[in-house]
Amino acid sequence: MPTDHTVKSYDDELKRLDNLIAEMGGLGELQLASAIDALNRRDPERAAAIALADRRIDALEEDIDHQAFSMLALRQPMARDLREIIGALKTAGILERVGDYAKNVAKRTVAIAEGQTNVSVQTVARLGYLATEMIKDVLDAYLSRDVERAAAIRGRDRELDALYTSLFRELLTYMMEDPRSITTCTHLLFIAKNFERVGDYATNIAEIVQFMVLGERPPIDRPKDDATSYTIMVSSGALGLAKEASN
Amino acid sequence: MPTDHTVKSYDDELKRLDNLIAEMGGLGELQLASAIDALNRRDPERAAAIALADRRIDALEEDIDHQAFSMLALRQPMARDLREIIGALKTAGILERVGDYAKNVAKRTVAIAEGQTNVSVQTVARLGYLATEMIKDVLDAYLSRDVERAAAIRGRDRELDALYTSLFRELLTYMMEDPRSITTCTHLLFIAKNFERVGDYATNIAEIVQFMVLGERPPIDRPKDDATSYTIMVSSGALGLAKEASN
Repeated sequence: MPTDHTVKSYDDELKRLDNLIAEMGGLGELQLASAIDALNRRDPERAAAIALADRRIDALEEDIDHQAFSMLALRQPMARDLREIIGALKTAGILERVGDYAKNVAKRTVAIAEGQTNVSVQTVARLGYLATEMIKDVLDAYLSRDVERAAAIRGRDRELDALYTSLFRELLTYMMEDPRSITTCTHLLFIAKNFERVGDYATNIAEIVQFMVLGERPPIDRPKDDATSYTIMVSSGALGLAKEASN
Repeated sequence: MPTDHTVKSYDDELKRLDNLIAEMGGLGELQLASAIDALNRRDPERAAAIALADRRIDALEEDIDHQAFSMLALRQPMARDLREIIGALKTAGILERVGDYAKNVAKRTVAIAEGQTNVSVQTVARLGYLATEMIKDVLDAYLSRDVERAAAIRGRDRELDALYTSLFRELLTYMMEDPRSITTCTHLLFIAKNFERVGDYATNIAEIVQFMVLGERPPIDRPKDDATSYTIMVSSGALGLAKEASN
């Protein structure tokens, strides 16, 4: 039979899981913000430091996996307790990827800083700020188990997707108008895609919050496909003006 | 105390989990192969059918999540049994993403088929075949719990990454030499990146097999960063020949 002491200690373990998620999420936000800052300044040294700091996020995921796994094995939780642990496992997996995206943005920033053109990174940075804000808000929702706040993330993701779609077209246009910008714009396209995916991950965490609190079935980490997969841009020639295809 | 009946029934449940993984993995392979075929033929109708069929893969992930979750709650497994269930959960999450990548390749194929240029898709298709073979082999390793076979996947992923890196440079060169190819090549870059990620996911499943069998700590679904993040290509002008930057 569980004693008060056992029950208390189990709560402590859940609390520890929350603290690890808070720490991991905080680092993820910081990495994203630093990556955007390095991109804005085209600062390769700052970018290189971000790639190194990603190891701390990876180590935190291992801590969370380890903690969750021993709780599953030793505590044999059911219902809400089980959902809390599976939710933490899934969230840690997502935050690890968010860290990877920040690292990838930083690496591409090194290439952009050393590139030969000066394409504006302003809109890409704005996309990054939006994605970072979504991660920050959904972590607040996670840590307070606030289902309504989590649900509000979905609308924000639509805003992010719309900005990404217009940015994708804008970057293709730059490339068509000035082939010297192709390498830089390609890296910016991948950076923009990374931020778009970070927004998807924020909505995945929002679904995990709903799952933990309301007991719906385990959520699926499903990226919505972005609208740009179908984008066709027509160039009228080597230096012709690009325009969007009509279909 | 568990009776023989309970034990037998638990084995049946694990077997059912394996069957669901086998079905989901088989569908994932099929979707990848169809997507490559549609790309090779630039066949938008075939590509559109692939996007629709992805729903079946998503439904299978829900089945696996549901089955795994009720086994965790009702059976309270420990040690190897617990690892089998967590391994299935993680593998299902990965296979769902593999299906998403196949769908995304198909969608981009629609755009490529309607595009204005005829860039060769041969190398991208070869990358796709390599990635599909890796998924097939790692699923065989998973279903036979063959740790050595799983470990061999890692070397294959290096081969895939090397091909991806050379393809990335090749596509940038095409774009610089013929700006009319920019939209098509951009979609091909994203398709190639999708296949490169599928290879990463195959190695993630290989790590899960090791985790299930050998009892190492839960694996982290960590994508290795590809070498192209640092790629810089220099164009000598609007129609100039592209060459790789020396650094």
